[in-house]
Amino acid sequence: MATKATTIPLAQHIFSRLHQLNCHSIHGVPGDYTLRALDFLSASNIRWIGNANELCAGYAADGYARAAGMARLTTAAGPHKALTPRVGSLYTTYGVGELSAINAVAGSYAESVPVVHMVGSPSRKQWKTGACVHHSLSDGNLGVYTEMAKHITCAQADLRCDEAQEAARIYDHALEQCVRQSKPVYVNMPSDIVSAPVPAALLDRPLDLSRPTNNAAEEEQVISTILCRIQAAENPLIIADGLSYPFDFIAEVNTIVQSTNIPTMCYNAGKGVVDESLPSWEGPLTGQTELSATTDLALLFGPLLSDTNTAAWSAIPDPGICISFGLDTITVGHRVYHLHSKPLLEKLAGRLKAMGREQGRPKDQISHDPIRSPPHGSAICQDDFWARMSAWLKPYDTQLLANGTPLIGGRDLRLPTPTQVIASGIWCSIGQMLPAAQGVAAAKRDLAIPGRTILFEGDGSFQVTCQALSDIIRYRLDVTTFLLNNGGYAYERWLNGMEAEYNDVPAWQYTEVAHFFGAPTNSSDYPVISRKVSTWAELEDVLADEGIAEGRGLKMIEIAMAVDDVPSASRPGLKRAGEILRAT
Amino acid sequence: MATKATTIPLAQHIFSRLHQLNCHSIHGVPGDYTLRALDFLSASNIRWIGNANELCAGYAADGYARAAGMARLTTAAGPHKALTPRVGSLYTTYGVGELSAINAVAGSYAESVPVVHMVGSPSRKQWKTGACVHHSLSDGNLGVYTEMAKHITCAQADLRCDEAQEAARIYDHALEQCVRQSKPVYVNMPSDIVSAPVPAALLDRPLDLSRPTNNAAEEEQVISTILCRIQAAENPLIIADGLSYPFDFIAEVNTIVQSTNIPTMCYNAGKGVVDESLPSWEGPLTGQTELSATTDLALLFGPLLSDTNTAAWSAIPDPGICISFGLDTITVGHRVYHLHSKPLLEKLAGRLKAMGREQGRPKDQISHDPIRSPPHGSAICQDDFWARMSAWLKPYDTQLLANGTPLIGGRDLRLPTPTQVIASGIWCSIGQMLPAAQGVAAAKRDLAIPGRTILFEGDGSFQVTCQALSDIIRYRLDVTTFLLNNGGYAYERWLNGMEAEYNDVPAWQYTEVAHFFGAPTNSSDYPVISRKVSTWAELEDVLADEGIAEGRGLKMIEIAMAVDDVPSASRPGLKRAGEILRAT
Repeated sequence: MATKATTIPLAQHIFSRLHQLNCHSIHGVPGDYTLRALDFLSASNIRWIGNANELCAGYAADGYARAAGMARLTTAAGPHKALTPRVGSLYTTYGVGELSAINAVAGSYAESVPVVHMVGSPSRKQWKTGACVHHSLSDGNLGVYTEMAKHITCAQADLRCDEAQEAARIYDHALEQCVRQSKPVYVNMPSDIVSAPVPAALLDRPLDLSRPTNNAAEEEQVISTILCRIQAAENPLIIADGLSYPFDFIAEVNTIVQSTNIPTMCYNAGKGVVDESLPSWEGPLTGQTELSATTDLALLFGPLLSDTNTAAWSAIPDPGICISFGLDTITVGHRVYHLHSKPLLEKLAGRLKAMGREQGRPKDQISHDPIRSPPHGSAICQDDFWARMSAWLKPYDTQLLANGTPLIGGRDLRLPTPTQVIASGIWCSIGQMLPAAQGVAAAKRDLAIPGRTILFEGDGSFQVTCQALSDIIRYRLDVTTFLLNNGGYAYERWLNGMEAEYNDVPAWQYTEVAHFFGAPTNSSDYPVISRKVSTWAELEDVLADEGIAEGRGLKMIEIAMAVDDVPSASRPGLKRAGEILRAT
Repeated sequence: MATKATTIPLAQHIFSRLHQLNCHSIHGVPGDYTLRALDFLSASNIRWIGNANELCAGYAADGYARAAGMARLTTAAGPHKALTPRVGSLYTTYGVGELSAINAVAGSYAESVPVVHMVGSPSRKQWKTGACVHHSLSDGNLGVYTEMAKHITCAQADLRCDEAQEAARIYDHALEQCVRQSKPVYVNMPSDIVSAPVPAALLDRPLDLSRPTNNAAEEEQVISTILCRIQAAENPLIIADGLSYPFDFIAEVNTIVQSTNIPTMCYNAGKGVVDESLPSWEGPLTGQTELSATTDLALLFGPLLSDTNTAAWSAIPDPGICISFGLDTITVGHRVYHLHSKPLLEKLAGRLKAMGREQGRPKDQISHDPIRSPPHGSAICQDDFWARMSAWLKPYDTQLLANGTPLIGGRDLRLPTPTQVIASGIWCSIGQMLPAAQGVAAAKRDLAIPGRTILFEGDGSFQVTCQALSDIIRYRLDVTTFLLNNGGYAYERWLNGMEAEYNDVPAWQYTEVAHFFGAPTNSSDYPVISRKVSTWAELEDVLADEGIAEGRGLKMIEIAMAVDDVPSASRPGLKRAGEILRAT
């Protein structure tokens, strides 16, 4: 019988910790500063996903973390003693690699996604001497990239230690920050320390993921205030938003909605947080409504109050009547309490449940508007498309909405429960969602999370990070892509330059992309289907195809749409934004 | 007759200044913060090159600037009163766009390439209020990206001015720094100031590109010192390096080589600087040689002394016997003089020319080693390939050597004169050279620079930035690509993991890539040829094909090579580097 090694290489400690946090795959691109550590992946029970480039790796790690956060959908519900362990991770090389990924990591920071960014860097000796190494700026200042990373990560673990055990300690602390703050962390891994030994037993000491607690008296006081406000409100409103996902508010928000029957809406990024079959579900809040303007109490869960997420802030009720739940702040009107929302919300939800009747309908009875059936030969327009897709979705599906028209159109989907929607609330980086879908699919496989990974993509977005499709194929991941091909940046056209060449993108042969990237043909293990549809009848054919609906393997459905087509409800807002742009 | 407008929009001033600096194309990706300014491109006589993503745009702008610096190849030689006006430029959107390009801009900084990075940002009012705008980190600190850019640009023009005319002044100053320091600059362009009027007459005031001058006495003293050292030296050596390109030393270095007949070599990045038909040309300096170890005087022109450029510093002679010419420092032994090299080198070259005999052979008589002719059916190996390609090259060709095996193999090319080689001296970012080739081809067309744009690419590199090929096709640029397909990162394999999956890349259908990206078929205006060759006979067929050799349109030649094939001269060094990696 093999005895347990008393020491392991530092890299094995680093990677094994990720596994403990439900990250079973590391994304990245190898480089000479990272190569050595990669030899310790298999001992750590970690899979390497070699992306075609680092930006894709960064977005994939973000997607992985978001999906991993949903693993609880399939595990026992109810209060847990520890924080949900879930991170995404990427490993890039010094300078060139890490900077190529920095946009994705900054996006994780802006949207509170816990991602561990490991960077393989020069040896400790080279750091000390300020050697003129490749990938440096040639000025001997090797720390410049760490400085840059400080702006977009919540903690930096600098492993330039004399002792590897000290490096392990620093690293562990950063990981705890990553989970606790739900933000990315940066790990500087000099190439010569990764194989240095650390005690294997360090891994037996669990990371401190204990749930934060609040001052009981203050918490109780705030709960009482909130309960009073709810009871006194004549026109209360619940607004779910995107940070409810990373802050793990989903169960509590839904309990509160069910128990109070308060009319409930969501901002773009909060799509999917609330069970849309509940009777008090009022749909997305896409601008000022009578309700949002006249409400005397708005409960905001996980708000991300950017212009794009709130119809240029017009959909935000008066702050004086808002109660907002952030990660570790609760804002009641203009007063800010430094309290952790999660434990408070658990108690609040429990009280409301005990006080109220269960108002929700059975979850499997979601009602759809009757599906419009345009003439068979007619072109597919945005308004009809999103309504039609609603009936095609299934519980446990994850929908990714690319920035552009899918982000706008997707909010009109009627979603089954449970579900997850990945829709950017503030970062809105074009090209993010295809690699994010790769990461979601990887997490679903690693963590046995059920449901399809469905990407609603634009052609302009697809071109930014197209090689992510090669990564999806390489690792035989299950992704269904609806590529809305409107010949350019339709969203931007409505802002400025409706006919301008700068809003065009070239015409690619999207139905050939899987073949080009080396997808197998006629594989029963990894079925690949590519289709192009231009008419309603062709779309119906695709949606009726069981081979497509099963979601296994790669499905690439290109949908031709008019260059200027955006959901009609969004047109006035886009026009107004364009006028402001030109007026100044 | 139209009278000249007395005012123009600030954006027109900004773009027109770029035109004055021989930048006739701006690379970028549009975003809502940039859209308004794009309407003023045509009035500025500037072409927009809309790249598929920002990293490609950044690399293309770098390539454009490097090529533009060579425009003098076709203009009158001899000393000029002003600095050569040449910049590349890119225009990206706030946050997501600029961060996606930041790796490329940092590379321009590390390798002294003058690139203007314009960033369209929120309105001045939003800056003042710290609004929670999209693409921000949601914390109200809108200046975070400017802070990051400070690390990798030599000047930052922040155009958050009340008066547009003040913004124009700040911008003009940054442009001067860009050209003078030969480094990138950052321009923050709030979206609401770009259309504000500035006097059209500002453009009539030329930018200050006057050549820097030295203290005459100090300059004379250093020249004397150098002349004495040259005369006293028994085993002098000239080493040309990569910064000779941006610092504009080419003419002077060649005059000095011709006039002194001193044995001349180059580091990787200095390939192409010296006329290789000169009798004293000794080839690349790829490690310690008897000459480099025994020389008593080494003249280093434009050195970039990174590990990868100098065989892990083994190819650098003892600093005590070196004279190094930087942009504005000259190092004689251990003494540093703050003198501008260019004017000093002009005088030095003039003196040496007057003193010496012209030693050079006529330039059109470059001698090639006899071309090896392996059996027709045999596979193509790196050693034979580079020797064979030498005879295929023509004067005025620009060769781009991708990071990986092309960077190593390409140094063995025997080059005709004049030429330019783009080979990374320190940045070595995988994926750089395909988009850089797009930029080179754009500059060649814009500035009527003759010669083909020839890219030696790897498959791993190609996958990083493949969409640049779509940009090349979209703008009908003339690029010839030899894609060395060895199924992965061959260079990395030699360092660690010869058989490791992490060094593999998936197999793409490279001969279909032009079609996939929408290339025209059978167009006489833009001929597109794709070929795949696996044997020597097939390669010879390609090289004999006039339709390929003309270089017009797009040529994509995929060359199958063994997974572990690297030039044999490089193997001992790579093995040693790998041992060091694993030893620590």
